[in-house]
Amino acid sequence: MPYPDEAQGFQVDSPETFTTFHKRSFPLKPFGEHDIDIKVEACGVCGSDVHTLSGGWGEQKFPLCVGHEIVGRAVRVGPKVTSVQPGQRVGVGAQCLSCGECKQCKNDNETYCPVLCLDTYGSTWPGTDLVLQGGYSSHVRAHEHWVFPIPDALDTTLVAPMLCAGITAFSPLVRNGAGPGKKVGIVGLGGIGHFGVLFAKALGAETWAISRTRAKEEDARKLGADGFIATAEQDWEVPHRFSFDVIVNCANSSAGFDLAKYLSMMDVHGRWVSVGLPEEEGQVIKAQNLIANGVLIGASHLGSRREMLQMLQLAADKGIKSWVETIQIGEEGLKEAMLRMKKGDVRYRFTLTGYDKVF
Amino acid sequence: MPYPDEAQGFQVDSPETFTTFHKRSFPLKPFGEHDIDIKVEACGVCGSDVHTLSGGWGEQKFPLCVGHEIVGRAVRVGPKVTSVQPGQRVGVGAQCLSCGECKQCKNDNETYCPVLCLDTYGSTWPGTDLVLQGGYSSHVRAHEHWVFPIPDALDTTLVAPMLCAGITAFSPLVRNGAGPGKKVGIVGLGGIGHFGVLFAKALGAETWAISRTRAKEEDARKLGADGFIATAEQDWEVPHRFSFDVIVNCANSSAGFDLAKYLSMMDVHGRWVSVGLPEEEGQVIKAQNLIANGVLIGASHLGSRREMLQMLQLAADKGIKSWVETIQIGEEGLKEAMLRMKKGDVRYRFTLTGYDKVF
Repeated sequence: MPYPDEAQGFQVDSPETFTTFHKRSFPLKPFGEHDIDIKVEACGVCGSDVHTLSGGWGEQKFPLCVGHEIVGRAVRVGPKVTSVQPGQRVGVGAQCLSCGECKQCKNDNETYCPVLCLDTYGSTWPGTDLVLQGGYSSHVRAHEHWVFPIPDALDTTLVAPMLCAGITAFSPLVRNGAGPGKKVGIVGLGGIGHFGVLFAKALGAETWAISRTRAKEEDARKLGADGFIATAEQDWEVPHRFSFDVIVNCANSSAGFDLAKYLSMMDVHGRWVSVGLPEEEGQVIKAQNLIANGVLIGASHLGSRREMLQMLQLAADKGIKSWVETIQIGEEGLKEAMLRMKKGDVRYRFTLTGYDKVF
Repeated sequence: MPYPDEAQGFQVDSPETFTTFHKRSFPLKPFGEHDIDIKVEACGVCGSDVHTLSGGWGEQKFPLCVGHEIVGRAVRVGPKVTSVQPGQRVGVGAQCLSCGECKQCKNDNETYCPVLCLDTYGSTWPGTDLVLQGGYSSHVRAHEHWVFPIPDALDTTLVAPMLCAGITAFSPLVRNGAGPGKKVGIVGLGGIGHFGVLFAKALGAETWAISRTRAKEEDARKLGADGFIATAEQDWEVPHRFSFDVIVNCANSSAGFDLAKYLSMMDVHGRWVSVGLPEEEGQVIKAQNLIANGVLIGASHLGSRREMLQMLQLAADKGIKSWVETIQIGEEGLKEAMLRMKKGDVRYRFTLTGYDKVF
């Protein structure tokens, strides 16, 4: 295998053929002194992968190999790397570079860096024409700031989806004070939402799952939810008015969403934080919908390295287990993953495994 | 004069005749053990008065005497009143009652009480048909929680507008951390906005006034603004991207507002808090506009008693002076006030005075 400056992986050629994967070789970005090469052992299948490949988020750079919930072994570390040893098990998430020097980067807000936020796949490496390829592949290469040591207690298959879906739920929870004495809601029990319930509960909050019907209530309770709200029911919001401190909205779509009812459940200056990036247009917000309780509406994007390490440690300490269905990586498995993700037919995340069988 | 269970005041009969005031007598609400009767000496003219009388906020209970920036002397205090002595100078703002017993009321959030938020004028007193009348009148009566002792250092004419416009600007500033080391913006240099600049500066923040043109720049600088942004200019937001911690939006209208540009000026998790209640429909918010910096969008409604007392003390300590134009209360003066408010022709607040000449 053409290691270490090339990797092999599964690429898609266009949105029209987003379920057809081709195994190919492609170059890795130039090796830097802070870089780590990782031999991939597992990768979660993120909603972003599907949005990206199927064209829902607009034009992308094809051919493309996606995947940004990557777990593997460090097989080469640059001379200036201090945080990882060769052979160590590590993870890579959805972002692989920021400027590292601005106020935001120095302030644990590197996923909001205004200078440079480079996605793990699909972005062009600065100063080159090279389009970065993701973790549906044999190897990835990344700067050590974006490579996270995985605590021994965590299973490779289960930890993979935490690297994007997990941190996406965890960061807004800790940034908005989820913890003992707080009432926290998680809207949308999908890949991100199931982590929302797991982490809100682990952080000590009174945790409510909020879904359209009661179909997932049993799952939500098993995940640790203290309560369940079904928004298809009459007056579902009424008993909860002025009571939630934080709601993390993980819904993947805003269609048919009566936002005012959700917001009416927030306590004074409660936070309604969205982590999804729906493909639809936005929603109309009226000051009148915000003023009764002074609710704050926001959005959140991944989470810092510091939060990533904190999340992994919490998961290790509390024995938090993602709900994962494994799929053998390959043309067939990836097609199945795409089709079932598109239908929302997964509880609650796929992890691609069996890398040693195909690379 | 039929004191104390009646007052005299200036009422309007319909939105169509909102500049025609009639001097009439009307009953005060039943006197309670915690109530204070106040002989009015001055009253600010609030944008709400005009919205209410001219029908912009929908149907109201006419005939109506408005006014909720009231300063006067306590002339009668109920047997259970502990906070005010007879003869003391006091103020009343825009709210005159909440339930007093819920979590929000006990938590300094009584202006967000989910049980009962009674406006100083235009609301019906619970258990009666009596529609409360405001401070364009000889006397008002209110529960002591909503009656604020005025520090001696403050001038009656200048303090009146602080009781609604002032606290409306002050509360979101202190609740969102305006202070030393923070960059704060005030959008809209009107009645509320000019207090925003005065208070943000007094609280120690780097204070920027944000207006359409530079017409008010000199005023803004005199009020204490460190900087000025004119949104009619090309690329006005570019130098300020990712820099504001808090912006209080005091604009009275959302027409032609390119919200995404304003939001792009916020630092990570900065707060964009609106205090106006525009008559237009709301704005479309897309998660995409919020995600780059994780900005939080909110609204704020008045401020607590604790904040009111804190604001008055700050104004006294720092010698903060509202910019006020006085108008003699009466049919003629009120007509002029309404017409000029409707045009935005005031810098920056009217205070009605000369009460002893008409009552």
